[in-house]
Amino acid sequence: MLLKSLRLGARRLATVARDPRFATVQDADLRIFESICGRSHVKTTEIDNYKTDWTKAFGGNPACVLLPASTEEVSAILAHCSKRKIAVVPQAGNTGLVGGSVPLHDEVVLSVKRINKHFEFDEASGILNCDAGFILEELDNKLAPHGYMMPLDLGAKGSCMIGGNVATSAGGIRLLRYGSLHAHLLGLTVVLPTEQGTILNLGSTHKKDNTSLHTPHLFLGSEGQLGVITRVAIGAVPKPASVQSAMLGVDTFESCCNVLRMARRHLSEILSSFEFLDREVMIVLDEALGLKPVLKTNPRFTLLVETSGSNEAHDTEKMERFLAQCINDGLASDGVQAQSVAESAAMWRLRESAPLAVAADGFVFKNDVSLPLKHFYGLTEEVRARCSSMTKRIVTYGHLGDGNSHLNIVAKEYSKELYDKLYPFIYEWVNAHDGSISAEHGIGQLKLPYAGLGKSPAERELVHRIKSLFDPNGILNPYKSF
Amino acid sequence: MLLKSLRLGARRLATVARDPRFATVQDADLRIFESICGRSHVKTTEIDNYKTDWTKAFGGNPACVLLPASTEEVSAILAHCSKRKIAVVPQAGNTGLVGGSVPLHDEVVLSVKRINKHFEFDEASGILNCDAGFILEELDNKLAPHGYMMPLDLGAKGSCMIGGNVATSAGGIRLLRYGSLHAHLLGLTVVLPTEQGTILNLGSTHKKDNTSLHTPHLFLGSEGQLGVITRVAIGAVPKPASVQSAMLGVDTFESCCNVLRMARRHLSEILSSFEFLDREVMIVLDEALGLKPVLKTNPRFTLLVETSGSNEAHDTEKMERFLAQCINDGLASDGVQAQSVAESAAMWRLRESAPLAVAADGFVFKNDVSLPLKHFYGLTEEVRARCSSMTKRIVTYGHLGDGNSHLNIVAKEYSKELYDKLYPFIYEWVNAHDGSISAEHGIGQLKLPYAGLGKSPAERELVHRIKSLFDPNGILNPYKSF
Repeated sequence: MLLKSLRLGARRLATVARDPRFATVQDADLRIFESICGRSHVKTTEIDNYKTDWTKAFGGNPACVLLPASTEEVSAILAHCSKRKIAVVPQAGNTGLVGGSVPLHDEVVLSVKRINKHFEFDEASGILNCDAGFILEELDNKLAPHGYMMPLDLGAKGSCMIGGNVATSAGGIRLLRYGSLHAHLLGLTVVLPTEQGTILNLGSTHKKDNTSLHTPHLFLGSEGQLGVITRVAIGAVPKPASVQSAMLGVDTFESCCNVLRMARRHLSEILSSFEFLDREVMIVLDEALGLKPVLKTNPRFTLLVETSGSNEAHDTEKMERFLAQCINDGLASDGVQAQSVAESAAMWRLRESAPLAVAADGFVFKNDVSLPLKHFYGLTEEVRARCSSMTKRIVTYGHLGDGNSHLNIVAKEYSKELYDKLYPFIYEWVNAHDGSISAEHGIGQLKLPYAGLGKSPAERELVHRIKSLFDPNGILNPYKSF
Repeated sequence: MLLKSLRLGARRLATVARDPRFATVQDADLRIFESICGRSHVKTTEIDNYKTDWTKAFGGNPACVLLPASTEEVSAILAHCSKRKIAVVPQAGNTGLVGGSVPLHDEVVLSVKRINKHFEFDEASGILNCDAGFILEELDNKLAPHGYMMPLDLGAKGSCMIGGNVATSAGGIRLLRYGSLHAHLLGLTVVLPTEQGTILNLGSTHKKDNTSLHTPHLFLGSEGQLGVITRVAIGAVPKPASVQSAMLGVDTFESCCNVLRMARRHLSEILSSFEFLDREVMIVLDEALGLKPVLKTNPRFTLLVETSGSNEAHDTEKMERFLAQCINDGLASDGVQAQSVAESAAMWRLRESAPLAVAADGFVFKNDVSLPLKHFYGLTEEVRARCSSMTKRIVTYGHLGDGNSHLNIVAKEYSKELYDKLYPFIYEWVNAHDGSISAEHGIGQLKLPYAGLGKSPAERELVHRIKSLFDPNGILNPYKSF
């Protein structure tokens, strides 16, 4: 139910024809792959989990799934595929939402999940150097005894892998506090799809290194189209000793923005989340899942504010002052500070259940856009004015602190008429209001037709030329973004 | 005196011959430049400040200095220079230390200092969008009334410009707290040296934007060799309400590393500087400049710890607990917390005067390297063992929290024998111990002969191919890094 809307993309893209330049995998190729990875790591059956991604909306029929265990095996695979012009889709945790990690036709899937042996953590500097196939949560667990954690956190942390996090420039719920992965990435080992299977060690394990072009950052958000990431050097962050949560009820969107300003001032260095839910989300949470609001005053907007710090007494005091100031200044009409882990969990349950609530409510057209704060809720209002009569409900939640809105349009069922009313209208509106049509999910297959929106021909040409430089035969993750 | 050692690089590089592929600027070219920039902004006299950089160690005889006022003027200049194969050196504040921003022969200097009109700050998101020619300190002053500041701070802040900060991936003294510029850079306008003078708007003004390759980050540390940066979108950070300083005396280098661990735990989110000075620096500060140490116990090592936070009472308490724990655990033999701005200034004066003290003491061979903490001071000890008898003194200070050591070797006067004893030994030692030969200063002209150290042929080839992609005629900042 949750993922119905995404199937749209798959339907449309099924019409993209297979590129005849790519060779079809033959038995001889399978024998070579077996000689590289070992027989049991070249799979042609029981590969459903590799064919389609987490959304089940995208997928193809890969000729085989390869499970190399090392950078060298990836190199040998890519060298062979380059010579033979066999298309390859790199895959890590396969938890994306835009169809970027699965084949469209018969591309070979190259999974990095077995490249998960090397783990090296320098507690003095906080720098982690590890294989790309480690699951994000595993890394967090391994860092915890040292007093550190990964600088990013996602809903998919139990299955997404660090190599995929880097390839997609994953955002998540700690971004406000710790910044994007650009703030932490230091070095990469990547394999290029060349006839030599070129292995590159890029960057280093130093926080400061100005000895070359900072090429690792080009792979952040490259969606597996420049090379296969096999190892990652990244800065970890100290694990906070204290995490505090609070919810505020706010009557106007302008006041929400003022509460954010107030949070930046009062909570400053410990502010770790600033999440937004409108009243319509609260209603569907109750109606669809029976989840009652924490705030009983039925405010127009609900804000969920979280801090992560090193001193519980200090953090509690900061949060109390922040809440008091918001109430005193009339910015918030209601405010509750969580007094226990259970109360904090109840707040987060509302925010984290929002996608499930709308999915249970009907067919959902999901969106993931960045907007300047002054236009953040304008999009929702515009879409309501445009097509309320055709929908069941229109709700918005998201990461207000990052300017990242998740506008969800719910209908009884999929309707081509509603789709055409929504798209490309939403993307064009976002573009016209200086926004981004993909804040954190990427382009993949889903947004490919709109990838050029707001980009100049010169930017497009540069991106294509960079792609050709890294992937001269265009065999890596074809039919996607670039 | 300070900069004697750098002249070494200039002497050596004077032997790099002018590339005959480059055209010599003719009167007709000057007329075209005048038609683009206006007559008074094409200079052939009174250009000393553009010919040599801040070090006075590097420089050439530019055919002219161009002072365009806009992206469009830069585009017209680079289009003409591309057609005519005229070599161009982009220049911003010209405060570098490695000869990256000045010509070697007759290259035209293209200064961005007049591109300093556009300034747009969104207080809600904290995102700044401004021209490349703004001086860093000016930007800080413009942000202060909004409660924000730039995420970087340098000794050169009064003259360095944001375009140059990005081009060199400037580090500085706030890096420990706010991260590198990768953490903050969001978008760039750049002009490529093509026959069209291609203008590119790369990235955006959003904290989250996964709609394309993250190309702006490729310009961080590109040292003006890929394109000319004319506009920058960058995240500013809330200005701290409270800044605290303390000095600790420590008897072993291992204890210094343990104090750093302790600081990460106790000061965590407010730790903004962790600076290191050895006893030899303290002695030369006294002997050369008459600066007395703050700590009277003559410790083997002195650490300067600074916090930047939003709540003075909380920050003071955190600092007190941290100091008490270091003393109680026997990590530090001495510790003083600054009780006033004057006391804090006295601590910083010692650290900031260290380069001046060694310069006043004799001829200095300066170094800027990153090392794993376990090898941080090993380099100093190794160099002492190797050539103490040939030197006046060997001292080390630096940004221990970032793993960035500034090892300074002082001699009575320049000696080729000592130079040959030090180099390439130091760079090779750093490379063999997993370090970086340039932490924050870059390669420029000074370290060009060693730029390949520790890099694979494949990495070098990739970098050269990226350079060719952006600068097909190789006219931009020649004879430098790539």
